[in-house]
Order: sequence, then structure tokens, then C-alpha cells
Amino acid sequence: MLTVNTGDILREQGEGKGEGNGEGKGEGKGEGKGKGEGVGVGVGVGNTALLEAKLGSAHESLRRGTCAGAAFTQWLTWPQAYDRDEYRRIKSAAGRIQAEAKALVVVGIGGSYLGTRAVVECLASPHYNLLPKTTPDIFFAGNCLSAAHTQEVFDLIGDRDYAVCVVSKSGTTTEPAAAFRLFRAHLEAKYGKQGARGRIYAVTDRERGALKALADKEGYETFVIPDGTGGRYSVLTPVGLLPIAVAGIDTDALLAGAGRAMEAWNAADASSLDTNPAWQYAAARHTLYRQKGKCTEILAFYEPRLRFLGEWWKQLMGESEGKELGGIFPATADLTADLHSMGQYIQQGLRNLMETVLLIDEADTPLAIPYDPDDADGLNFLAGKTLHDINRRAFEGTYLAHTDGGAPNIVIRVPRLDAYHLGGLLYFFMLSCALSCLMLGINPFDQPGVEDYKTNMFALLDKPGYEAEGARLRGRL
Amino acid sequence: MLTVNTGDILREQGEGKGEGNGEGKGEGKGEGKGKGEGVGVGVGVGNTALLEAKLGSAHESLRRGTCAGAAFTQWLTWPQAYDRDEYRRIKSAAGRIQAEAKALVVVGIGGSYLGTRAVVECLASPHYNLLPKTTPDIFFAGNCLSAAHTQEVFDLIGDRDYAVCVVSKSGTTTEPAAAFRLFRAHLEAKYGKQGARGRIYAVTDRERGALKALADKEGYETFVIPDGTGGRYSVLTPVGLLPIAVAGIDTDALLAGAGRAMEAWNAADASSLDTNPAWQYAAARHTLYRQKGKCTEILAFYEPRLRFLGEWWKQLMGESEGKELGGIFPATADLTADLHSMGQYIQQGLRNLMETVLLIDEADTPLAIPYDPDDADGLNFLAGKTLHDINRRAFEGTYLAHTDGGAPNIVIRVPRLDAYHLGGLLYFFMLSCALSCLMLGINPFDQPGVEDYKTNMFALLDKPGYEAEGARLRGRL
Repeated sequence: MLTVNTGDILREQGEGKGEGNGEGKGEGKGEGKGKGEGVGVGVGVGNTALLEAKLGSAHESLRRGTCAGAAFTQWLTWPQAYDRDEYRRIKSAAGRIQAEAKALVVVGIGGSYLGTRAVVECLASPHYNLLPKTTPDIFFAGNCLSAAHTQEVFDLIGDRDYAVCVVSKSGTTTEPAAAFRLFRAHLEAKYGKQGARGRIYAVTDRERGALKALADKEGYETFVIPDGTGGRYSVLTPVGLLPIAVAGIDTDALLAGAGRAMEAWNAADASSLDTNPAWQYAAARHTLYRQKGKCTEILAFYEPRLRFLGEWWKQLMGESEGKELGGIFPATADLTADLHSMGQYIQQGLRNLMETVLLIDEADTPLAIPYDPDDADGLNFLAGKTLHDINRRAFEGTYLAHTDGGAPNIVIRVPRLDAYHLGGLLYFFMLSCALSCLMLGINPFDQPGVEDYKTNMFALLDKPGYEAEGARLRGRL
Repeated sequence: MLTVNTGDILREQGEGKGEGNGEGKGEGKGEGKGKGEGVGVGVGVGNTALLEAKLGSAHESLRRGTCAGAAFTQWLTWPQAYDRDEYRRIKSAAGRIQAEAKALVVVGIGGSYLGTRAVVECLASPHYNLLPKTTPDIFFAGNCLSAAHTQEVFDLIGDRDYAVCVVSKSGTTTEPAAAFRLFRAHLEAKYGKQGARGRIYAVTDRERGALKALADKEGYETFVIPDGTGGRYSVLTPVGLLPIAVAGIDTDALLAGAGRAMEAWNAADASSLDTNPAWQYAAARHTLYRQKGKCTEILAFYEPRLRFLGEWWKQLMGESEGKELGGIFPATADLTADLHSMGQYIQQGLRNLMETVLLIDEADTPLAIPYDPDDADGLNFLAGKTLHDINRRAFEGTYLAHTDGGAPNIVIRVPRLDAYHLGGLLYFFMLSCALSCLMLGINPFDQPGVEDYKTNMFALLDKPGYEAEGARLRGRL
């Protein structure tokens, strides 16, 4: 099994919770290197020496800031270098929002909401807003142009007290800017101009941009999107931390896990496929893409609350790597549900797929199958077994079926889904992603293709300065 | 623009609601044939005569029941041939559930829940359970093996009155069978054995299977999964109709729209790429796959409530077509949100993509951008414009950007998202899907690859009879 075990490194932190289930097998396949008990290494594909040389050089250029897009590598040391004063302000603002609001509207698109939503769904619940709780509901707006969705957020808030966290570097991105106009107008009508000012929190550029200027003029409390971190690498900055803290999630632990991952996987002795899970994942997908022609990667998980982590991962990977007419296409599968929808394709469709399974080791609830004296459904062979164990056997059976069917699997194991380990996992994906791109000679931090639709849209909306282009484009529709 | 306009045909129904927005352009590109005002045909790719010959032969074999998998074509005439007596029982059961329960748990996996969830999200809301309403909350269980998810459904129901609709042809599929054991035991503990019987509704085989036997013994009210309809083609049978009716959705209109589509697109004069939208879609994707090597299809939509319709579509297409080491890989994009995540890849990644845009013509809410005297965000050029119009310009800009970037687009237009038109759209996709498969020489109705993981899982769970295989598989892990 090509297993990448993120937990072994994180376990050294010693949280004293007894993580005894690191049963990683570690038999490397192919040319992979096994490390035995509890480590579960085994890249299993490719020329190890060549991969290590490429990874070493990529990682070195990242650490030294000599890689492509080096101005956007602040996330690399962020988990330890973040501004402590600002972090205290975040916590205090989160406390104020919790006290004064029954709902928080997070206005942002792309990296300005996906990381937040991923963490809230993983650590609170995908049904967070349905749960009885003392923390505010969290709604996402400005992440689309749907009138129905935007109106529904207003309807769901109703006449409850609420606050807005608007996340935008420039303040002029159409989706969040349009939504922010609507929510700001609504807040000002509801609380008056002064009252609204105390309920709007802006996460934006340190000094430039329309949102920063507006926030300064109105006196909104502001937090900084660091210059050196692009949207898809920003979940651990104020972009994610403020709304995540409002949901009552332990941001200290989230940062601690990322900090531990940062230390461990950037250390000198981590420059090896034996010891560095981020290297193992990057090497495995690189080999499968370049050597085996696997150009679609399905991130599969067996817990529905990982779905938005999958959406965050899709942006991270797709926007970093999908350039110059190449890169691995990222998709997700919510298993076992999707074994009854996408399973047929994964088993027997076009063989251009690889599957990366994100596996949580620890059971979070002891729910077990009851015994039925009649055994009408023939399920008594499962009686007494926990759902968690059955789910694990489903993974194992699926792993064997899909690899036998020609869809190679990479398995990423996480000891448990808490804030500490999730922090480490977010860092793991960001580091692996950057290394993957650099191995392909791709800038991991730009997104040159995202402007094209915006330019067209501005033209079609007759934005001043775009009128001639607008007329030309309308002629093509 | 390669436009497939489903609305024109459906409009003939004349619901008297004045659907005046069928502004289909109709200029065929390439070899596509234009038909002028309001039809919006234009396949635009491929050899029209050859495609029509293939489609004619595929459609004929489907209608005559001589195609591969012909035993599973009952869905083709179902919207008019369904059992009226059973349909009346469905409505009456739905009324009883609405009166007696505050929540309904739908237990089912794959086609036994995706269609229901798609219709409820499209026509009620993706936030249906958060809305104030007189109809019961709807929860989905038995669609995975997650202990956390299953426990959460129990927690969210709390001590409210609830009912269970269990959907399973055999009654022995592991996920729903396991969940049904848990919910049945809970209902019996809560209401007593007799009380539970009145709160369990089984949608299952007419006469065979574990669930049918149990339902007969216990006296549950049962509804029939027709023999001639596979799971992914079953949304308009009791599988979907019962829970959809419980959500207060107009099932009469859903069936009427499907019925009209069935009449129109199976008619003798619909055997043409000029007149048959289902042919147009099948022909366009066939040509893009076979002739242009586009092996991943992204279904993109600009309204978040279409997301689960996308999940339903992924099962329909992927499970029907993903066979014999081929078929188009189905993925979805939730726009404009995903323009800020997957947009970069679609614009500049590997050029093996086609994009199918599902477009709703009619605005459902008049929300517009307010004017701001300061214009700090520079958005006054949008003031007074509705979000719906801005969203439409975003689609147009994206369409031009993506096609310019080498990702061909197919556009499927729907006049509005109501039950009638959604019924027609569901039928449209089922018919197009079957035709697509038959053009490739693939059986659209089997799923031979879905058994592999199940067999392995049973072995790893030591199901009686599988023990030897279990030992062998454990040795491979």
C-alpha cells in the first residue's frame, strides 16, 4: 500500500492523548522504500534517486526563496512567524462577534472562503448551522453571483443580530464586492451607519486597495492578508482564523499542528523519501502523472465532513498546477456514497485515474450494528462491529478492488480529525502542492488564467474602459 | 454557441405561465444546423449525417427494446405508464408523514437517494432543513458508513417525531441495511414495535428480497421499485416520488414535465439533430470524446442549488458510460465560485476537457446592486443591475474565455427551475445518457464494476462464505 502517514511526525508533539493506532504497514512496493513499524512509508513508484534529487532541488529553492513565484512563499514559515499581536486581536474580535451576533456572514470567494468552510465542516460539522450551539451560525456569501443564494442568506438570518467578515485583498473582485454592498446596506439600514461599523470586520491588504480604504474611512476593524501569501495558501492567516475562531474552533491547536509540520518537514533530516510525507505524496503523484499518464487525481475520503476539505484541495492543486496546458485534474469522491455513483467509472472506466485516499484512523463515535434475532437482512455477521470498523474494511476492500482494476492508490493517513492534526494536514497539502509544481517547472503561486473570464465579464457588463471590447464580445455570442 | 434548448419543446405544454424568455439564438456553428428563432440548435461538431444514423439506430433499439440491457428500459415510458393507484398511495403516505413527523430519514445509497436530494435541493433549497416550513426536515442516511454522520442524524432529530423511508431493491446492500437496522431499532425503542411499524415506509422490490420479506412480516407500507428500472434511472418512480412529495414538492408537475419530454423527444419527427435536444447533447459529447479526445466532462452551473443535480448526473453518466476501460469522466463545477478554484485549470490545464453548462434562463429573485455615492469599490457601473443579469454576463464571459482557451462548451438551457421543467430535464439527461452509451456500443443499464469492492469488503468483514477470500485479501494489505 502506498501509504503517506502524516501522523507519525505529528505524534512526536506528544499531546498526551495516546494515539496508539499508528498501524502503518510500510511495505514499500516497486521501488518504494519501507521503513517498518508505524511509519508507513512506501512511495512505491518511480526512480527514487532521481525523485529525491528533484525534490531536494525544489524544496531548497522554496526554502531559499529562489523558486518561481518566490514572493508568495510566506505561508512556508507562517505557522511560526505569524503576528502574535494581530492573532490576539483576532481572538478578541471573535469573542465580540460571538457575544453580539447570532450569525456571521463570511463574504469571500476562492481561497477567501474555501479554507474556512473546510475547517468548519471538518471540525464542527457540515451541519454546523443546524446544530444547537452557543456560537453564531456561519453563512457564506459573495462566493457566487446567484441571486437565489444571496437572498436566501438574508432570509435565513431573518431579524437576528449578525456581523459580516468581508475577505478580499483588493475589495474589487466582483462577487464579494457585490455581496458586500448588499450586506453593508442591509446592516446600515438595520443598525444605522455607526452600528454597522461595529459589526463589519475586513480582512484585506495591509495598506492598499478599495476595501482597505473603505475600512479606514468607516473605521471597520481590519486584519491583514499577508502580501506574501496567495489566496489558496491563506487558510492559516486571518483569512481563515477569524471566522474559524468565531465557530469556536481551537485555532491555537490548528496553528500548533501546522507549526509542528513546518518544523518537521522542512528540517534538514527530512530531505528524504524515507522521512518526509510531503515528499512521498509529491513523488507518488509526479511519477503517476509523468510516467504512467495518470492525469486525473481523485481525492477520496470516507467521512462526509471532509467534503469541503476536498474542495479546498481542488483549488490548491488545480489552481497551482493546472497551467501551460498540463497538470493533474483534481476531482473528489465522497465514499462509500460515491462507490454507488462514481465507483463503476473508477473501477472500469478510462485508465487515466489515480486515487488518493484521505484516511482518518481514529473512530469518533462508537456506534455499532445491533444484533437482530430474525436476521432478515442477513447482517448479523456485522452485529457488534462498529460502523467505523466496517467503514475501514470498506476502504480496504475498495483499495484492493481499485488497484486491481488499474487505478493506483495513494493513501494519506491522519491519526484523528482534530484541530492539531488538521493544521498539520493543511500544511502537508500546501507543501506537497508547491513541491509538485516545482518538480514540473511550474510556478505554484500564480493563476494567470483566472483573469480571462473576468476581463470578458467586465466588458459584457460595460465596465468603464471596456466598452469597445464589450461590443466585440457581444458579436460573438 | 453549441446550445441545447430543452425549453422550446417543453414550452408547447402551455402551462399558461407565459414563458417568454426562450431567446435561443440558433446559429449553428461548424456543421451544426440552425433552426432560427427560439430553437437554439447547433451541435456544431462532427459529421451530422453519420451522427444522425448512429443516433437513429441507437434510439430505435431503445424504443423497440432490442438494445443492450433492454430489460432495464422501463424508465423510457414510465412518466406516462406509471401506476396511478400506487401514485395516489404515495401522495397519501406523504400527507401522513407530513402530519405525523417533524423529520423524515431517507435510507438509501446511489440512485436511492441522489435523485431525491437533487430534486429537493433544486426545488426547495440546499438549505431546506434550515428553512422555517410546515413540511418535515429531510435527512439522508445509509448512503455511507460514517459513524459520525449517522450519529449526527440521530442528534439532529433529537426527540422529535420522525419517520423512515428505506429504499433498497434487495434490502441487503450494506450501507442502507446497516443504517436501517440502527433507525429501526431506535424507532422501536421510541414508539414500540407497533408504533414503529406505522412510521416505516419501504420502497423495494415488488415481491423478492430481504426488505420486502421484512416489510410484509412487519406490515410496513411498501412501494415498488420497478423491475425494469435501474437505480440511476429511478428518480421518477416511488424511489424519488415519496420523499420528494414529503418535502412539499409538486410531483404532478415533475411527472408532467417528464411526460411531455418523453412524448416530444421519442416522437417520429424528433429523429433529427434539428429537433431533438437529447440527440444534440449526445451527438456533441460523442464527437468531442471520439473525435477531439475530450475525455473529462465538467457539468457547470451558476446556481448552487444545482449541485446535487450534478451529483445525480455524475452517477447517471459515470455509471452508465464508464466501462470497458473507456467513457467520459464526469465532474462538476459550481460557478462562479469554482472559477476561483477550478477556473485556472479549465482555462489553461490539460486540454482533455469539455464543459457542459446548465443554464437557467429565468431570474427567481429581483435582487439588484445598490448605488453607492462614494463608489469605493468601483462597482457603480453595476448599480441597478440585477444579480441574475450579472450572473448571466459572467456565464457569457466564461463561455468565451473557456472556448477561446480550448475547452469546448455545450450549453443546455432550461427556461426556469420549477418542477415541470426539472421533470423534463431529468428525462432529457436519462435519454441522452442512454443514447450516448448505445452510440459507443456500451450497455447503459448495467454496472459490472460495482460488485468488486463489495465482494472484497464482505471478505474482509468475514461474511459467512467469504472467509477464505478474507484471509487471502488480508495478506495483501
